[in-house]
Amino acid sequence: MGKKLTKRGDDYSKWYNELVIKADLAENSGVRGMMVIKPYGYAIWEKMQAELDRMFKETGHENAYFPLLIPKSYFSKEASHVDGFAKECAVVTHYRLKTGEDGKEIVVDESAKLEEELIIRPTSETIIWDSYRKWIQSYRDLPLLINQWANVLRWEMRTRLFLRTAEFLWQEGHTAHETKAEAIEETRKMQGVYADFAENFMAMPVIKGTKTESERFAGALDTYTIEAMMQDGKALQAGTSHFLGQNFARAFDVKFTTKEGKQDYVWATSWGVSTRLMGALVMSHSDDQGLVLPPKLAPIQLAIVPIYKSADQLEQINERVATLTKTLRAEGVSVKYDNRTTYKPGWKFAEYELKGVPLRLAMGPRDLENNTAELARRDTLEKEILSQDVLVDRIKDLLVEIQENLFQKALDFRDGLITEVNDFDEFKAVLEKKGGFVSAHWDGTSATEEKIKSLTKATIRCIPNDAVSEEGQCILTGAKSHRRVLFAKAY
Amino acid sequence: MGKKLTKRGDDYSKWYNELVIKADLAENSGVRGMMVIKPYGYAIWEKMQAELDRMFKETGHENAYFPLLIPKSYFSKEASHVDGFAKECAVVTHYRLKTGEDGKEIVVDESAKLEEELIIRPTSETIIWDSYRKWIQSYRDLPLLINQWANVLRWEMRTRLFLRTAEFLWQEGHTAHETKAEAIEETRKMQGVYADFAENFMAMPVIKGTKTESERFAGALDTYTIEAMMQDGKALQAGTSHFLGQNFARAFDVKFTTKEGKQDYVWATSWGVSTRLMGALVMSHSDDQGLVLPPKLAPIQLAIVPIYKSADQLEQINERVATLTKTLRAEGVSVKYDNRTTYKPGWKFAEYELKGVPLRLAMGPRDLENNTAELARRDTLEKEILSQDVLVDRIKDLLVEIQENLFQKALDFRDGLITEVNDFDEFKAVLEKKGGFVSAHWDGTSATEEKIKSLTKATIRCIPNDAVSEEGQCILTGAKSHRRVLFAKAY
Repeated sequence: MGKKLTKRGDDYSKWYNELVIKADLAENSGVRGMMVIKPYGYAIWEKMQAELDRMFKETGHENAYFPLLIPKSYFSKEASHVDGFAKECAVVTHYRLKTGEDGKEIVVDESAKLEEELIIRPTSETIIWDSYRKWIQSYRDLPLLINQWANVLRWEMRTRLFLRTAEFLWQEGHTAHETKAEAIEETRKMQGVYADFAENFMAMPVIKGTKTESERFAGALDTYTIEAMMQDGKALQAGTSHFLGQNFARAFDVKFTTKEGKQDYVWATSWGVSTRLMGALVMSHSDDQGLVLPPKLAPIQLAIVPIYKSADQLEQINERVATLTKTLRAEGVSVKYDNRTTYKPGWKFAEYELKGVPLRLAMGPRDLENNTAELARRDTLEKEILSQDVLVDRIKDLLVEIQENLFQKALDFRDGLITEVNDFDEFKAVLEKKGGFVSAHWDGTSATEEKIKSLTKATIRCIPNDAVSEEGQCILTGAKSHRRVLFAKAY
Repeated sequence: MGKKLTKRGDDYSKWYNELVIKADLAENSGVRGMMVIKPYGYAIWEKMQAELDRMFKETGHENAYFPLLIPKSYFSKEASHVDGFAKECAVVTHYRLKTGEDGKEIVVDESAKLEEELIIRPTSETIIWDSYRKWIQSYRDLPLLINQWANVLRWEMRTRLFLRTAEFLWQEGHTAHETKAEAIEETRKMQGVYADFAENFMAMPVIKGTKTESERFAGALDTYTIEAMMQDGKALQAGTSHFLGQNFARAFDVKFTTKEGKQDYVWATSWGVSTRLMGALVMSHSDDQGLVLPPKLAPIQLAIVPIYKSADQLEQINERVATLTKTLRAEGVSVKYDNRTTYKPGWKFAEYELKGVPLRLAMGPRDLENNTAELARRDTLEKEILSQDVLVDRIKDLLVEIQENLFQKALDFRDGLITEVNDFDEFKAVLEKKGGFVSAHWDGTSATEEKIKSLTKATIRCIPNDAVSEEGQCILTGAKSHRRVLFAKAY
């Protein structure tokens, strides 16, 4: 494997594509737009899943599983929903293959045509709300707080590993509530959970806000988002939480008896994050040497490489390391001791650097004599020689420090890329030369938003939750505006 | 909800169907043959997954993820494989919907027809081996030990919740090895892991054996199986591990450079268990009162129900229970304290009995006075009044005891249903009157096996791993046989 990466400064997009493949995270499959998530990439996704799943459960949610295939008619029940997804649906029309007339080729059996076509879920609101009708009768059945871990499929025309793939893995929460206020509270709560996860586990700062009407989920009354900033100055929508009002309850006739004995439609939310987060993770921290992973999501937190000339030396290092790894594992540190004889130390160093392992420990003959070891951190590429007596404490401290350092670095970078502008020329100049978020006044209309997008490719990423009231004029039309919104070019 | 169940003795099949629904494990969806796994059922599946995943990782496997859709042409590359699965494949032919000419109905967009149809995976050998060709070049890349947790789809005509559904959840291991011996060792090892899981977590005794040629996986040279016995005397195949020889390596041209510098095809295995295990779990232990769960897989191991007349009494019970649950949770016991005021104690007792919660604790005003509580175990339905001082220890002991008791009970039952027979009349009589496994001599031919099946509906479940050499005569043809095999009617 050639490990040399394109530099970010030369071609960020190429750097990303190469890195995902060289670091063994994922690769394209033989099926258009569908990726294979390789073991190392999947191990990171599993760590993400474990933390998110814990957070969902701590906020009262349970997991369930609903069918992969959705009858076409379900799909049509909520008008704006089907408009939003119909153009990118994989359609199952037959349920059998057979041997063709030539006796060799396998062909679709036309006699096994479905009466009603089935759609591979692009999202599961419709099939889930069809079940909720049966599950919800009374206020005692509410709130219903359910999450699903699943694969979904949207037939994307231009795909990129993790960032935009036809099939992707995700979780989708679908909740039902007695009141509008409670549903909105849930929507906001899950936005908060996502922000907490992004910042405290991915070490990726995010801005919490709401989407404008034109950027909302198809079928939602309001979409809450967390928006992150990548190293190339483009924004990335990292998670969304939707307040669905009573739209799906009406479409699927889900009513409940209130405490007062009346009938009412239930209030709904849905929220999701996907394997797209893997792309965001890569683009938040990695450098020209390869992947950089925050310790909390690194499948291997510490790689240990022995350096030896004789079998006897290796044996001695093996012994020392055995004691060390035992202690570290008991402390919850995930350690890989790589004493394969089929690869040289230099190759291993490059491998763990490329794969973003937060800490690397090397131990050689001189270290045996001096009771020392060399510890290298991936984020700063700094090395230090330490007494073996202090290794365990130092490793534990450094894992915390690296996690914090990555967040702080990403935060400083992101904060440096939020620019306030007050006229359209400045707006265009910032987008072109500096990139990042542009904080500007907007007249609140979809028409203006669309025009700005067609002129600059920038979209309104969100109206920040903490936007302050400020009188101003729309950068494009000059019409009155009462607060700034955040624009950016985005993934 | 009406909680009254059909009795097993009256109609076992009806009892099963009712129980799965009433205990909130799963239900049919609006899509033919596809189930919704409800939160309580999914929580049990999650516990199964967690244990299996741990066991796979402890035996050196890593998880990965491969595409849901497989090009038709991949499928045809291994001849017996496509024969085995072509009849039950869901086929994706289009990738877009559009609004029909009436401006209302949503129809398939004929202009978005795929050049090559895509099959929803019924199993992933073909798409995975297409990747392995890229991953494996040298003996240093071997063994490749990968597992995938995924949904798969087989278009079954007659479906039953968990036992046979069109879509099901499973794990599929796919490994590649340098030598035949190593691949066979892996196949057997995973059979052992499955048996360990079935017996020590599901409390379900299994017989390890190999399948006859006609019952093998399509594309395998040998299929190892674990076979369980359900309460109605029918066998259930609970997990299979396949030795695939070099079939898929040849079909997908996966060669490697050996240590000696030669080129050779790699040796393969695949192995899987599915949500079918949920059906096996239900049918192994449950009774006319409802579900009975082994403590190691119970989402709730202990349910606590307060009995009170006044708010003051409830408050006092809440306090006592808070201390108790804290201690129990610290000991790893999963506790649910159900102090909902919307349901009465009697309703809650029936609910936890139906849902198979291993232990139930009731605490009332008199218990407050006497420092006691009533503990009921689900497996034997026995109750005892205990001092609160000994509760924690007693609960921990009982959870172990119930796990062991369920296994022992199932083992005694299963052992009572293995009958040796030596002629065909006896064979038919045992199958008809007693059921269970019938241990008999067979002449080793598929023709005889097929004839016995058509005459009795019994199939050869397996040739037990520990079958002893014994000279005898085939029960049907009288031809020579050197060992007994196990027949049974099966799910």
